[in-house]
Amino acid sequence: MVSSTSERSATYERRTSWLLTAAAVLFLVVYAWPILQPDLPTGWVHACSVANVTIWTTFGVDYLVRLALAPSKPRFVRDHIPDLLVLALPLLRPLRALRAATALARLGRASMGFRGQTTAYVVGAVGLLGFVSAVAVLDAERGAANANIKSFGDAAWWAVTTITTVGYGDHFPTTVQGKWVGVGLMVGGIALVGTITAALASWFVEHVGAAERAGAQAPDQLAALTAELAALRTQLNNAQAGDRTDR
Amino acid sequence: MVSSTSERSATYERRTSWLLTAAAVLFLVVYAWPILQPDLPTGWVHACSVANVTIWTTFGVDYLVRLALAPSKPRFVRDHIPDLLVLALPLLRPLRALRAATALARLGRASMGFRGQTTAYVVGAVGLLGFVSAVAVLDAERGAANANIKSFGDAAWWAVTTITTVGYGDHFPTTVQGKWVGVGLMVGGIALVGTITAALASWFVEHVGAAERAGAQAPDQLAALTAELAALRTQLNNAQAGDRTDR
Amino acid sequence: MVSSTSERSATYERRTSWLLTAAAVLFLVVYAWPILQPDLPTGWVHACSVANVTIWTTFGVDYLVRLALAPSKPRFVRDHIPDLLVLALPLLRPLRALRAATALARLGRASMGFRGQTTAYVVGAVGLLGFVSAVAVLDAERGAANANIKSFGDAAWWAVTTITTVGYGDHFPTTVQGKWVGVGLMVGGIALVGTITAALASWFVEHVGAAERAGAQAPDQLAALTAELAALRTQLNNAQAGDRTDR
Amino acid sequence: MVSSTSERSATYERRTSWLLTAAAVLFLVVYAWPILQPDLPTGWVHACSVANVTIWTTFGVDYLVRLALAPSKPRFVRDHIPDLLVLALPLLRPLRALRAATALARLGRASMGFRGQTTAYVVGAVGLLGFVSAVAVLDAERGAANANIKSFGDAAWWAVTTITTVGYGDHFPTTVQGKWVGVGLMVGGIALVGTITAALASWFVEHVGAAERAGAQAPDQLAALTAELAALRTQLNNAQAGDRTDR
Repeated sequence: MVSSTSERSATYERRTSWLLTAAAVLFLVVYAWPILQPDLPTGWVHACSVANVTIWTTFGVDYLVRLALAPSKPRFVRDHIPDLLVLALPLLRPLRALRAATALARLGRASMGFRGQTTAYVVGAVGLLGFVSAVAVLDAERGAANANIKSFGDAAWWAVTTITTVGYGDHFPTTVQGKWVGVGLMVGGIALVGTITAALASWFVEHVGAAERAGAQAPDQLAALTAELAALRTQLNNAQAGDRTDR
Repeated sequence: MVSSTSERSATYERRTSWLLTAAAVLFLVVYAWPILQPDLPTGWVHACSVANVTIWTTFGVDYLVRLALAPSKPRFVRDHIPDLLVLALPLLRPLRALRAATALARLGRASMGFRGQTTAYVVGAVGLLGFVSAVAVLDAERGAANANIKSFGDAAWWAVTTITTVGYGDHFPTTVQGKWVGVGLMVGGIALVGTITAALASWFVEHVGAAERAGAQAPDQLAALTAELAALRTQLNNAQAGDRTDR
Repeated sequence: MVSSTSERSATYERRTSWLLTAAAVLFLVVYAWPILQPDLPTGWVHACSVANVTIWTTFGVDYLVRLALAPSKPRFVRDHIPDLLVLALPLLRPLRALRAATALARLGRASMGFRGQTTAYVVGAVGLLGFVSAVAVLDAERGAANANIKSFGDAAWWAVTTITTVGYGDHFPTTVQGKWVGVGLMVGGIALVGTITAALASWFVEHVGAAERAGAQAPDQLAALTAELAALRTQLNNAQAGDRTDR
Repeated sequence: MVSSTSERSATYERRTSWLLTAAAVLFLVVYAWPILQPDLPTGWVHACSVANVTIWTTFGVDYLVRLALAPSKPRFVRDHIPDLLVLALPLLRPLRALRAATALARLGRASMGFRGQTTAYVVGAVGLLGFVSAVAVLDAERGAANANIKSFGDAAWWAVTTITTVGYGDHFPTTVQGKWVGVGLMVGGIALVGTITAALASWFVEHVGAAERAGAQAPDQLAALTAELAALRTQLNNAQAGDRTDR
C-alpha cells in the first residue's frame, strides 16, 4: 500500500513538474511587469492580478494534492516548509521562480560535471535573486517620500552593489518592506558568492593537489610493502633454485 | 585525590549547566527589554536591574566554585580567560548568552552530522551576535546628539549591513561605546561568515572530489604492487607444476 | 584532410600569437592615452583613433581566418563566443588586453609551479582589470554633470575600493555607461579575489594536511595488508625449513 | 670557500636577529609617538627623529653586511627585494615592524601546531597592519583641509571598517598619501582575512573529512589486493599440504 502511494506521488510530481515550472516563470512576468511599467493600462494590470491569483491557486492546489498523496502527512509538512512559507508570505513569492532554475539545472545534469552544473545553477540563482530583489525593492521604495531608489536602473545598480557587498551607499532601501528585501538579498548573496568561492577552492585543491602530489607523495608504507614483496619473491626464487640443486 | 577532585568538578558542571544556561537566556531578556522598551514603568526597569545583578552574582559564584574545585588553580585561570573577561567588562556581558547556543548545539549533536551541526551553530551565533549588537548599539547611540541610530529598526538594519560587510553608511555608530560594539560585530561577523564559506568549501571538496576521483585516481603504485603480486603467484604456480613433473 | 586543416590552424595560431598580443597591448595604449591626457593635440588623438580601428580590423581579420581554417565552423563559433563579444561590443574591448597577460603566463609556465603561476596570473589580471576599469569609468564620468569621478586619481581610488568590496561611497559612477563598467569590475573582482582565497585555501589544505596527516593517518587497511604479507613470509620460511629437515 | 661564507652569513643573521627585532619595535614607537601626541615637546620630537635615522642606518648597514657575506650577490639582491623597498620608500617603513611578529612566531613554533601558529601570526599581522595604517593615515590627513580623519579614534575606526571591507564611508582618506595607505591596508587586509578563511576551510576539510571518510572510503583496489594475497596464501597452504601427502 505505502509503496503504491509513494509511486503515485512520484508519477504526479513527474507529470506536473513542467506545468509548475511554467507557472513560476509566468508568475515572474506578471509580478514584475506592472512594477516595471508603471503606466501599464488598467486592463493589463487587472489581468496580471488575476493571473497572479490563478498561479497562486495552482501552487496551493499542488501543495494539497502532494500532501494527500504523501505516505506520511507530518513528514511531508516537515520536509516542505519552504513551500508553505512561499504560500503564506507574499514577500517570498518571487523565490518560487527558482523552481524553474532547478528544472533547468536538472536538464543540464547529463552533459556537465557536478562542478560545472553547480556553477551554472549558482550563476542563474544570483541573476534571478538580483532581478527579483531589484523589482521588489522598486515596488517598495517608489512611493516613499525620501527614497533614493526611483527607477529600475537605480534598483538594479543597488542589487549589484549589495550582492557583491560593495555597498557604496548611493542607493539603499529606506522603507521597512524594502529593507526586508535587502536582508534577503544580502543573506542569499553571501551564501551564493560563498558557493562560488567554494567551487573555486575545491577545483584548486584537486588540480593543484593532483599535480603536486603526483611525484611528491611517496607513500612510505606502500614502498615498504613493495620492498617486502620483492624480498619474498627473491627468497622464493632462491628456495626453488636450492630445491633444484638438491635433487 | 586529584582524580576525585576532577570528578567532583565534572559532576558540578553537569548539574549546574542547565541553571547557568537559563540564567544566560534570562540575562538576554533583562538586558534587552529596558533598552527596547524605553517607556517601561520604573518598577520593571528596577526589577530588570535587580535580576541583572543577581544573574551576575550567580556567574561570579559559579566561577569561584569551579576555581575551588579545579585540580590546578593557575591552569583553570589560564583556560577560562573568557569567563573572567565576561565578569570584568560590562560591555562583553551579552556574549554570555552564547552559552545557551552551545548547550542547544550539544543537544543536537546526536541527530545531525558534524557539518550540519556546525552550520546550525553558526547560524544561531550570527543571529544572537546580530541581535545583541543591535541592542547594545541602540543603548549607546540613542542618547547621542548627532547619532543616526535612533530605533531598534535602525539598529537591526545596521547590524545586518555590517555583518554582511555591505556597509552602506546610512546608519553607523558615532559614539565610542557604539564603535566598540561595531568592532566586535565586524570581527565576530567575519569569523562566522568565513566559517560558513569554509563549510561550503569542505562540502564541495568532499562531494566533487569523491565523484571525480572515483574513476580517475589510478594509483600507479597500487597497480604496480598488484602486478608484482600476480607475477609472484604465476611463478609459484609454475614452480609447483615443475615440482610435480620432477617427481 | 581534417587533420591537415587542424594542423594548419595550429600553425597559424602559433605564428600570429605574438602579433595579436602586441596589438592588444598597443590597443591598451591608444585606448587609455587620449582619456588620461585630455589636452592631447588633435593630431595624436586622430592617430589613436586610426590605430584603434586598425587594431580592430586586425582582430576581425584574425577571427575570420581562424574561422576559415577551423575544421568545424559551428563548433568554432560556439567555442569562441568571447572573441565575438569583444568584436561586437565597444565597451568590452579593453578586455582583449588580457590576451597579453595570458601570453606572459604561458611564458612563465616552465619556471613556476601551478599555484605560483595562477597567483601571478590573477595578480596581473586584477591590476589590468583595475586599470582598464579606471580608464573606462573616467571616460564615462568626466563629462557628466553631477559626477564625482573627475580625475584618474579619483577613478583609480574608486577601482581599488570597489575591487576590494570596501565601497566607501566617496566616489562611484553616476552614468549608465559608468555603472556598466562598475558591474564588470565587481563581477570580475569577486571572481579574482575568490581565486586568491581559493589558492590560499588549497595551499593550506595541502601543507597543513601533509604535516598533520604524516603521523596520524594510520591506514588500517595497509597495515593489515602488511601484516598478512609478513605472515605469508613466515609461513613460507617454516615450510622451507621443514622441507630441508625432511630430506 | 662558499660553504664557509654561507656559514658566516648564517652566524651573522643568528647573532643580529634580536637586535634588529628590537630596532623594528623601537621604530614603531618613535614613528607613532610624535603623530599620536601632537603636543609632544620639541626635544622629544627631535629625539624621535634622531632615533628614526639611527634605526634606519642600522637597517642599511645590516643590508650591506648581509650583501657582503652573501655567496652570490645578484641572487641576494633578487631574494631580498622587500628589504630594499623598505629602505627606499619612507611610506613602507612601518612594515619593517612585522619582523618582530615573525620573530615572535618563530618562538612559538615549538609549542603550537602549524595552523595555530599561522592563525596567531595572522591575527598579530592584522593588528599591526591596522595600527600602523591608522597612524600613517592620521599623519597624512590631520593637516588636510576637508579631511574627515582628525583623531586617532577616527583613524582606528577607519582602519577596522576598511580591513573588514565594511566601508561605511563616514571616514576615508582624502589626500594622495592617505589613499596610498588605504590601498596598502585593503590589499594587505584582503590577503590576511583570506588567510583566516583558508585556515578555517582547511580545518573543516580535515576534521569533517576525517570523520566522514572513516567508514565510507572503502578503497576497492586495496580490498582487491588483500583478496589476491589471501588467495595466494591459500594456494601456498594447499601446495604444502600436497607436498607432505606426496611424500
